[in-house]
Amino acid sequence: MHPRTGLPVVGMVGAGQLARMTHQAAIALGQSLRILAVSPDDGAALVAADVLIGDHTDLGALRKLAAGSEVVTFDHEHVPPEHLRALVAEGVTVYPGPDALIHAQDKGVMRAKLASLGAPMPRWAPVASVDDVARFAGGDTVVVKAARGGYDGRGVWVVSDPTPVQELLDAGTPLIVEERVPLVRELAAVVARSPFGQVAAWPVVETVQRDGINVEVIAPAPGLSEEKAIEAQELAIRLASELGVVGVLAVELFETADGGILVNELAMRPHNSAHWTIEGSRTSQFEQHLRAVLDYPLGATGLTAPYVVMANLLGGDVTPPSPGEYPRSEEHHRPPHEMTLDERIHHMMAAEPGVKVHLYGKELRPGRKVGHVTALGDDLDDVRRRARRAVHWLREGKQE
Amino acid sequence: MHPRTGLPVVGMVGAGQLARMTHQAAIALGQSLRILAVSPDDGAALVAADVLIGDHTDLGALRKLAAGSEVVTFDHEHVPPEHLRALVAEGVTVYPGPDALIHAQDKGVMRAKLASLGAPMPRWAPVASVDDVARFAGGDTVVVKAARGGYDGRGVWVVSDPTPVQELLDAGTPLIVEERVPLVRELAAVVARSPFGQVAAWPVVETVQRDGINVEVIAPAPGLSEEKAIEAQELAIRLASELGVVGVLAVELFETADGGILVNELAMRPHNSAHWTIEGSRTSQFEQHLRAVLDYPLGATGLTAPYVVMANLLGGDVTPPSPGEYPRSEEHHRPPHEMTLDERIHHMMAAEPGVKVHLYGKELRPGRKVGHVTALGDDLDDVRRRARRAVHWLREGKQE
Repeated sequence: MHPRTGLPVVGMVGAGQLARMTHQAAIALGQSLRILAVSPDDGAALVAADVLIGDHTDLGALRKLAAGSEVVTFDHEHVPPEHLRALVAEGVTVYPGPDALIHAQDKGVMRAKLASLGAPMPRWAPVASVDDVARFAGGDTVVVKAARGGYDGRGVWVVSDPTPVQELLDAGTPLIVEERVPLVRELAAVVARSPFGQVAAWPVVETVQRDGINVEVIAPAPGLSEEKAIEAQELAIRLASELGVVGVLAVELFETADGGILVNELAMRPHNSAHWTIEGSRTSQFEQHLRAVLDYPLGATGLTAPYVVMANLLGGDVTPPSPGEYPRSEEHHRPPHEMTLDERIHHMMAAEPGVKVHLYGKELRPGRKVGHVTALGDDLDDVRRRARRAVHWLREGKQE
Repeated sequence: MHPRTGLPVVGMVGAGQLARMTHQAAIALGQSLRILAVSPDDGAALVAADVLIGDHTDLGALRKLAAGSEVVTFDHEHVPPEHLRALVAEGVTVYPGPDALIHAQDKGVMRAKLASLGAPMPRWAPVASVDDVARFAGGDTVVVKAARGGYDGRGVWVVSDPTPVQELLDAGTPLIVEERVPLVRELAAVVARSPFGQVAAWPVVETVQRDGINVEVIAPAPGLSEEKAIEAQELAIRLASELGVVGVLAVELFETADGGILVNELAMRPHNSAHWTIEGSRTSQFEQHLRAVLDYPLGATGLTAPYVVMANLLGGDVTPPSPGEYPRSEEHHRPPHEMTLDERIHHMMAAEPGVKVHLYGKELRPGRKVGHVTALGDDLDDVRRRARRAVHWLREGKQE
């Protein structure tokens, strides 16, 4: 407990945007978020009071984070499992615990566990050799994935000829192979679970990807039947319980042409597919994660508007788009890519006074998630249009 | 501009709950809030990354805050006007500027200015002697106010016998006297104005006081005619423009038995009467204040639910209330005043999963505002009941 406030100190490993937004939620709850950052320039380190600089692979740094924290939790899943087991052995409360988190760290472990639970998922196999891939593929195109460390489309290869997989194996990358699912779209079922066992689910959302990176989330998923939505929520709740997750669990799903749902990935932390909850749900995923890891009763998860759309802001495309792509404005003498980010924010706010912006304090590198916007309303087409237009204004630019 | 993010640095004088909640809003906008705190234990200093320790009456400390900040703004109005004029003379952007802020710092200046503008207000007079009070009162009970420095009921005296006023005068307290208005209730019209001159108004609210301290805010004010609401908003907009306010302006109003509205007080910063906007409006007053002082276009001010109720959490009453006052619960073995704040938060969250809590990181001293809760919904009676019940669970207690 914090000596001044008498309220919990939560240690978070990692200082990216998830820690940054968790810090906002912790402030409201009177809690103190203590952050382990690799660099003082990390997004959350720029705004939080209690920041330790250290690496998440350094057990000593993790121990320092844990000292005085009620619980240790995560902004990412890159902490070595053996370090987490060491902390637990030393009496530190770690949520999600290492035996749960491993399913978000290792796709091979996750697939084997899901198989044992009979959860719906793509056909898959572990990979020890190029022959394993060839045998699994049987001449079809398949998806080879790094079992550990991939994100935002990295660590995923669509493979029609297995031969080059040897390079990955030679580099020591642990791999699995999966069938290429003929998917209609991607969905996400996000829940939170407390140590007491309480589970709360948000409405199932549609996640729209481009080049393997999530660009848009629509809540609730348009046209999803109530039966199918409940099936997805029940699956996520069952996985949270069976895997012993504490905190937020995001279950990324494929919806297939025949109306089936298959588990694609798991994340055990606040997740991009639920950023919309900050304004769009009575309880944000960041608040809920804090409530869950501290074993507080969970908050209400209802929507605050009929439709909520979150659009990611990706660091600048370097090629300026054609002028016709821009919204018209009297004030608009230069295209956005020639403006500073601050100027572009002005234009975005003038164009979309009801859209909420979240910026992560990151440098604008191409393809990098540097922020997001959220639009809410009654008319889905209008809400999507507003979110996209806002991102358009913020996108493509150089910084002064 | 912050060297890392390329986005504005806002300097805020004062590190109480208003700075704390402004910091949350600044994080979303990618901005850096730099805070001048009297103590590292101040509510905002506990959670912000960029904190200077220094006194708001020390020009040197104010200069340090201003260096590298795009704009200097305020969590409170206790900065000496001559210091602000000095900063402006040195080229610092100060919003609200000293010539506007003086109307929130000095009730005599405010009353004289409102009189010149023909704004509706209680009958009043400046006070230089006990005779001034006696003459103004003419045998009636009147209200004597400290012209400077009063808040939360402090600095206000209801006077039927003017004689003891001499003590205040002897102590050097500058005073004004006002008629005791036969008010029906109190209202607040809160707006924000940018240097460009854009003004945005939130719906007019009812503010409920107890012992001169605001305990509850209801948005929108129940039963207020649209005509009357527009009159109040137009008055607030006119005052913001005439006084040259930049940032949030809260106009506290008396509603009288004949349906009139009279200006009671002005505040030029985020204000307790608009804390409900965090969840209850598309744009919170904290975000709007930042947008305004940086001359960004202002955000949408619509309600996110038909009714929004904010209830203040005041530091513990020391006398335990009678057991019948508590909500029943199986888990509830001890009355709240014997629980730690953290235990009481658990109970409150279990009882009211949809109510949002905001804690300020302050010690629980009797009568002190240490947090607030917000409830939203369609049924005003239900929303008020939920807000009150949540505060009840959080109230009365000692800290471990």
